[in-house]
Amino acid sequence: MLGVCYYPEQWPENMWADDARRMADLGLKYVRIGEFAWSAIEPTPGSFNWGWLDRAVETLGKAGLKIVMGTPTATPPKWLVDRHPDILPADHHGRPRRFGSRRHYCFSSRTFRSESQRITDAVAGRYGRHDAVAGWQTDNEFGCHDTVRSYSPDAAVAFRGWLRARYSDVAALNAAWGNRFWSMEYRSFDEVDLPMAAVTELNPIHRLDFFRFSSDQVANFNAEQVEIIRRHSPGRFVTHNFMGAFLDFDHFKTCETLDLASWDSYPLGFTDSLPMTGFTEAERVRYATTGHPDISAFHHDLYRGVGRGRFWIMEQQPGPVNWALWNPGPAPGIVRLWAWEALAHGAEVVSFFRWRQAPFAQEQMHAGLNRPDNVLDIGGQEASVVAKELGADWWREVVAAPTEQAPVALVFDYEAAWMHAIQPQGRGFSYLALVFTWYTALRQKGVDVDIVPPGRSLDGYRAVFVPSLPHINKRAVQAFGLFGGLTVFGIRTGAKTRDFQISPNLPPGPLQALLPIKVSRVESLRPGVTREVEVGNRRYDCGQWVETVESGNLDVAGRFTNGSPALVRETNRFYLAAWPTRELASDVVQRVLDESGVVSMTLPLDLRVRRRGDVTFAFNFGGDSQTAPSDVNAKYLLGAQSIGAHNLSAWKT
Amino acid sequence: MLGVCYYPEQWPENMWADDARRMADLGLKYVRIGEFAWSAIEPTPGSFNWGWLDRAVETLGKAGLKIVMGTPTATPPKWLVDRHPDILPADHHGRPRRFGSRRHYCFSSRTFRSESQRITDAVAGRYGRHDAVAGWQTDNEFGCHDTVRSYSPDAAVAFRGWLRARYSDVAALNAAWGNRFWSMEYRSFDEVDLPMAAVTELNPIHRLDFFRFSSDQVANFNAEQVEIIRRHSPGRFVTHNFMGAFLDFDHFKTCETLDLASWDSYPLGFTDSLPMTGFTEAERVRYATTGHPDISAFHHDLYRGVGRGRFWIMEQQPGPVNWALWNPGPAPGIVRLWAWEALAHGAEVVSFFRWRQAPFAQEQMHAGLNRPDNVLDIGGQEASVVAKELGADWWREVVAAPTEQAPVALVFDYEAAWMHAIQPQGRGFSYLALVFTWYTALRQKGVDVDIVPPGRSLDGYRAVFVPSLPHINKRAVQAFGLFGGLTVFGIRTGAKTRDFQISPNLPPGPLQALLPIKVSRVESLRPGVTREVEVGNRRYDCGQWVETVESGNLDVAGRFTNGSPALVRETNRFYLAAWPTRELASDVVQRVLDESGVVSMTLPLDLRVRRRGDVTFAFNFGGDSQTAPSDVNAKYLLGAQSIGAHNLSAWKT
Amino acid sequence: MLGVCYYPEQWPENMWADDARRMADLGLKYVRIGEFAWSAIEPTPGSFNWGWLDRAVETLGKAGLKIVMGTPTATPPKWLVDRHPDILPADHHGRPRRFGSRRHYCFSSRTFRSESQRITDAVAGRYGRHDAVAGWQTDNEFGCHDTVRSYSPDAAVAFRGWLRARYSDVAALNAAWGNRFWSMEYRSFDEVDLPMAAVTELNPIHRLDFFRFSSDQVANFNAEQVEIIRRHSPGRFVTHNFMGAFLDFDHFKTCETLDLASWDSYPLGFTDSLPMTGFTEAERVRYATTGHPDISAFHHDLYRGVGRGRFWIMEQQPGPVNWALWNPGPAPGIVRLWAWEALAHGAEVVSFFRWRQAPFAQEQMHAGLNRPDNVLDIGGQEASVVAKELGADWWREVVAAPTEQAPVALVFDYEAAWMHAIQPQGRGFSYLALVFTWYTALRQKGVDVDIVPPGRSLDGYRAVFVPSLPHINKRAVQAFGLFGGLTVFGIRTGAKTRDFQISPNLPPGPLQALLPIKVSRVESLRPGVTREVEVGNRRYDCGQWVETVESGNLDVAGRFTNGSPALVRETNRFYLAAWPTRELASDVVQRVLDESGVVSMTLPLDLRVRRRGDVTFAFNFGGDSQTAPSDVNAKYLLGAQSIGAHNLSAWKT
Repeated sequence: MLGVCYYPEQWPENMWADDARRMADLGLKYVRIGEFAWSAIEPTPGSFNWGWLDRAVETLGKAGLKIVMGTPTATPPKWLVDRHPDILPADHHGRPRRFGSRRHYCFSSRTFRSESQRITDAVAGRYGRHDAVAGWQTDNEFGCHDTVRSYSPDAAVAFRGWLRARYSDVAALNAAWGNRFWSMEYRSFDEVDLPMAAVTELNPIHRLDFFRFSSDQVANFNAEQVEIIRRHSPGRFVTHNFMGAFLDFDHFKTCETLDLASWDSYPLGFTDSLPMTGFTEAERVRYATTGHPDISAFHHDLYRGVGRGRFWIMEQQPGPVNWALWNPGPAPGIVRLWAWEALAHGAEVVSFFRWRQAPFAQEQMHAGLNRPDNVLDIGGQEASVVAKELGADWWREVVAAPTEQAPVALVFDYEAAWMHAIQPQGRGFSYLALVFTWYTALRQKGVDVDIVPPGRSLDGYRAVFVPSLPHINKRAVQAFGLFGGLTVFGIRTGAKTRDFQISPNLPPGPLQALLPIKVSRVESLRPGVTREVEVGNRRYDCGQWVETVESGNLDVAGRFTNGSPALVRETNRFYLAAWPTRELASDVVQRVLDESGVVSMTLPLDLRVRRRGDVTFAFNFGGDSQTAPSDVNAKYLLGAQSIGAHNLSAWKT
Repeated sequence: MLGVCYYPEQWPENMWADDARRMADLGLKYVRIGEFAWSAIEPTPGSFNWGWLDRAVETLGKAGLKIVMGTPTATPPKWLVDRHPDILPADHHGRPRRFGSRRHYCFSSRTFRSESQRITDAVAGRYGRHDAVAGWQTDNEFGCHDTVRSYSPDAAVAFRGWLRARYSDVAALNAAWGNRFWSMEYRSFDEVDLPMAAVTELNPIHRLDFFRFSSDQVANFNAEQVEIIRRHSPGRFVTHNFMGAFLDFDHFKTCETLDLASWDSYPLGFTDSLPMTGFTEAERVRYATTGHPDISAFHHDLYRGVGRGRFWIMEQQPGPVNWALWNPGPAPGIVRLWAWEALAHGAEVVSFFRWRQAPFAQEQMHAGLNRPDNVLDIGGQEASVVAKELGADWWREVVAAPTEQAPVALVFDYEAAWMHAIQPQGRGFSYLALVFTWYTALRQKGVDVDIVPPGRSLDGYRAVFVPSLPHINKRAVQAFGLFGGLTVFGIRTGAKTRDFQISPNLPPGPLQALLPIKVSRVESLRPGVTREVEVGNRRYDCGQWVETVESGNLDVAGRFTNGSPALVRETNRFYLAAWPTRELASDVVQRVLDESGVVSMTLPLDLRVRRRGDVTFAFNFGGDSQTAPSDVNAKYLLGAQSIGAHNLSAWKT
Repeated sequence: MLGVCYYPEQWPENMWADDARRMADLGLKYVRIGEFAWSAIEPTPGSFNWGWLDRAVETLGKAGLKIVMGTPTATPPKWLVDRHPDILPADHHGRPRRFGSRRHYCFSSRTFRSESQRITDAVAGRYGRHDAVAGWQTDNEFGCHDTVRSYSPDAAVAFRGWLRARYSDVAALNAAWGNRFWSMEYRSFDEVDLPMAAVTELNPIHRLDFFRFSSDQVANFNAEQVEIIRRHSPGRFVTHNFMGAFLDFDHFKTCETLDLASWDSYPLGFTDSLPMTGFTEAERVRYATTGHPDISAFHHDLYRGVGRGRFWIMEQQPGPVNWALWNPGPAPGIVRLWAWEALAHGAEVVSFFRWRQAPFAQEQMHAGLNRPDNVLDIGGQEASVVAKELGADWWREVVAAPTEQAPVALVFDYEAAWMHAIQPQGRGFSYLALVFTWYTALRQKGVDVDIVPPGRSLDGYRAVFVPSLPHINKRAVQAFGLFGGLTVFGIRTGAKTRDFQISPNLPPGPLQALLPIKVSRVESLRPGVTREVEVGNRRYDCGQWVETVESGNLDVAGRFTNGSPALVRETNRFYLAAWPTRELASDVVQRVLDESGVVSMTLPLDLRVRRRGDVTFAFNFGGDSQTAPSDVNAKYLLGAQSIGAHNLSAWKT
């Protein structure tokens, strides 16, 4: 269940056989190759150099490794760019983003679409039925380096076509967009430009539709490759390696044509450098060498949802990386912990990036399982430990059993992220930070969480949390309506129509059918400005965002100091009219779990638990020992009840 | 004396009559319409759609409302931009700023000048003599979104023409600009470029002349519309809605062709988001839901000066807005307080923006008097209270009486702002912050203030404050010379010639005729670096800016620790050689008021007073009750001596 | 030994004679002229106006002054730019950087190269043999305003040529650059673009080679001028005025064709505004009016090394300047202190910038020796004191003696700065800050320091410090190998090959021949994350950068808490595996000095000493008196043992 990313084209051929043998000896089964090799495969236009890749595939296969083959479309060669500059993406001023790194293509470039199909067809045609090839990865990290949204001439053409398909006639677009405002009306679709370089704020629906269009272009681009691969490579899986904390396209939708999701997990870099998580500076310091206890888990749960139950870690951080603001090494033991954590959350495979640190080019400061001098690095040693542990019988049983549904679902929506990004209404509003507030509150109670898109059935859950869902489509309303467990809806839910207008009868719009309240005012608050909320006998100073709610005769479980309802309830549904402090989120979670009959516990700050089958895992992200929350009957499979620093344990009861 | 902004083109026609009736019922008299309606008026080139606007004017007029009609030039339609891309403004790299919001025109575009005249002529021609039309507003918020200064090819042509007119021959320009320095000499006006994209700092006079030119372009553009309107609409007033804290063009000059000034008052947004005011973070938090006690008052006093005694509030914030960094709701009662505050400072009309919150487009999060669901919002309720209060007899008497001159004048100069912006000499130097330091000091002493441009007669004032006036023209020297009361001149006054050169005999240049000192050195100071000033027996740690003054035999009323004069006096004129701390400004103000015989008091932090006629108003911007500074004979017209949170009172003695 | 910068073209001709006389009377000997006078010399294409310059040279010469003539190439006139827009440099988006200030030329512009030769030939031809001309300055402040690296079409052509010369065939370039990574391979040199506007990080060697190329262009440009000048002006020296804290080109290399180095010293501006020095905010405040005690000294020592023993101060700050973030005046006495400090460090001449403050154009707020009203300013008075002091016999003796080598050398490398800038690996990594950490530690021990490039012989030194040297070339390895004294190597030394690849056997690469260790891991640390180092019995919390070292059997003089070696020693060589705290640097320095037999002392914070010949100088940068560290036999030549605020003393023993 372990794998590694490998670049034979970057190393002398005489190292390959030894590399392959050592991979197998270490206990790795999968090896991903090829995703950046276009210039090695096709060094000049139309002239293919398959020899090296044939031999590499042979060598790896002979060592007993299974290959995940990548399509090399993330790195079009210089000759292609020089011949067809129209493949370059453009920035928000319309300037081409040039050759010299990677992902220098526009998803809307017609030339690049055909070139992408041509090279995918060539690679899939040649290796699709090779015994050693177990599966495929399309492209690499869609959207990385802000490449989902391109402002090129081809993008403008495609956007107009997308709008024409969506609105049919331009009067409908003008009405939906409210273009009468500020005389923004169009007389034809051809008059619509990309939302760029305007004098001041653009119409938010103009931007939202562009975000939707750009997301669709990614999904379509991926689907094109998938179709070609499936034609050539029957019986192999197709996946894509998604990223962490990346929200620029709809991953649920893009993954629909894939067999499983995979993602690239860099817990230290994410903890260090992602502003939108809302981690405090103290947390970034505290978890600098371990990663925040929720950063990987959140993504495991998210991508399990994206992959409809199936996901891999395609790239697992093995040591210090090169790209974060600061790049410390993982604490001793943490690489092993991360691997087990992924598996506990349901990962099918954990594949490390990369086999050996390259001494050249952009990622020369990115560690591998092996150092540049080909000595096994600390991360490699820890991977080896995991490989041995995975041989245990108890683990085989766990893997054989089907994945279980978690007791609690958290509803996550990419469009929600776009709408909040387009209209934060107050500086610092981050959808992801809001989601993390709820996710952490749940995880600190020892609860397993499924992350699902709006509209997916909520059957089987005991409780559901919806941090924010500005636009609730019909399927989502239906799913919420059918769900009989407790549901907590957060701020800005139902605030907008599909066309980014304020809901006609005010927020929460269509949710009013289930929860008859009206949000009559929203306020964003400067740091230092807070509103006191009282729930039960506790008080919480809420900042950033508060809402004024008209709640009629509904139960009011909490109020602002001025008497305005803060936590409202209608039968099994709550609405919380403030961005919760961590304490408030925690107390609301506790109340909902208790009433829903979900077993919970209050975990120490650095400890997290996760169940897979009948095994419970506990992960200690801290530097001090922790006591696992097992009962007296626990039979330990890994570790013991006392969990050392950066260690884990697993037990059956 | 109340009004509202309304956009019939944005609502179904069947709502108009009800809207008009409810406006009248609420006590509103004026309704501004039309200023963003170009595409509704002229949906395709040359083809006008007057029907809807005719009916809207009829409907509003029949309800007894008086219309302020806007020219729709702030929002040229897409078809116009596509036909004539030369109307677009350009940013400081010369890149066009594109369609998609508003104000996408360059004041120097020859095409846009003629199009602006064409549409103004059409609208003014059609409605100029309509009974319901009481007045006109030209365009909308000149300069908003940084649109005064455009770096387009047309702007370059116009700038060269402006320079030719100013300097006649290029040798004179070279001499005035000091172009010999760094070999910047020109051989003809055609060689002069816009001040943009240079390798390092541009010649400051190059920038100042471009700022002057750009300001003149605004004034000319406005004058062109005024001339057309006056031709078609005799007996109606013409105004423009200026903005808060906006200094990019000379409002005194631009307003010369108008009948009265009006301005758009958003106290919360201004308090929250304007860095140049110098408000501290603590003040921004303290006044987050009330606005800083001086932010509106300052602008009322400024625009009363700009309008030569006459001003309106054209847009009054009615609730949370959409554009500030954070957007809380106004504290209960504050919308009423703002309206009365404007009236107390002499506003003729307070017009709220807008009648009903629009659920679509860019300003969907901007509150109106009514909510998007057409329920009267809190702001609307408070407006209604004001409308009723305005019916009182005492108020009719106040309004009937002429506006009285304040005892103290503060000299304010747009060119001063430009010169300080071009040459701050130390990071953080803000002319507006310096002006506010003095204005607040005066207002905290309970003194009414007139804000006047340099050169306007100072007759009738007891004392005059000149925070800074780098270039003093002849008329200003004359006015200062004729004024017999106490005058306080601040730092950098007289520091520069008209051509942005250091004054020949050193600063304060022409002021030396009245105040014979020499500023031999100026220093800007990093935060944390201060110079102690001693005045009387008090000491003040002054930062940001200090000057070394040679004062001959003059009285030295305060000194720096090193003995250098800090506050110098010649008969009735003071020069203060430091950026004053708030305490120093307050103590200097007190001294001048005392000696001038101006009655003063020391008000609590959150309280302000203002007189209109024989009525004194007191405004409480704080959350605690305050005691009004009235004497025993006071007869209360509004409220009582104890003023509740966010409330006001008014009394006669 | 004093001089001044003068611009006769900027002043009425009738002031020249008086200016010249007053210069001579003040004790100035040298006067630099001409470096910005292109438009005055050649007002229209090909038509020269020599008259004024002939007369200016005559007038100055007659007053007994020696002229340093500048070539006017830093300010090409508008007519030249308009005729040949290809001379403009381009920014990193390829946009031309336009006329309007200075340095608006691209070093790679073929047109500008020939124009530069033409005007240099004209000026040098006319004045090369004039009696009053003592020497030449090429251009002015190469690279100022970020002008070393230009992204123009001509730069692309020249860069390709430079690459062709370096790599001969493109396969060699692809291999050296590791272009196989991310399919970045080129098929010919013509396919290589400038490193700009890429989607994400560029290949670091692509950038490094561009930095090297750009540096070479500066050196070549300078060499072209030098060759022309030498042809016309035999027996005169040629120099260039370099800048402070400027690292964009290799000054050692550029200076090879010059007779001596000179530099422009602005201690207040550098202390205030240079982020890369690593000065703390508290230091910037503390030394706001004196300059940091090491800022000038460091550059004196650096440029003495650049000039192979010979250097001038071409521009010495005389008062407040215009360009720093904040611009206070120098504390009383500090201008004198700076002049003596420069001389103590070996300067041949201290030339003040400028004779008189200009009231116009960009630098109107830059003080001169005289005020704009032609009164001698404070700086001028202090210069006059120095001039008198320089007449003393003891000083003549000092000057007559040859410069002595310092006991300690610090190895400084421009390429090191580029490599760290290209690959900081952790935010805030600054080569200059690291160098300053060591330099200050040495200077606070009262030790004189020579700053030398890698590869220069280290003979005669007692100890050598190498803060960081990522790429160690063969000559450098040889020099370190031959050196028998103690050497301290710092982090990242030997980390990279010439081609910016990780050293094959891991860092310190070629240094392993002398110091057999292996750096197996490097980590950059967020502020707040530290690793404790124990050396002797003291502990230090090191942040920013730590390394894991495999040290075999070597002596370990200090360890991290986890046992990993922090300070390793092999015979006379140390390797310190952490960015040292100031305390750690100080303690390591003390230990090395003690063992090397270098006399040291622990100076008070604000005091520095420097020896020239048998005279010791002590400089007090603080506001309190200090005691000079002289012994009982000291004979004071300047001042006394008690040194007042901002004063100095000098003594012989």
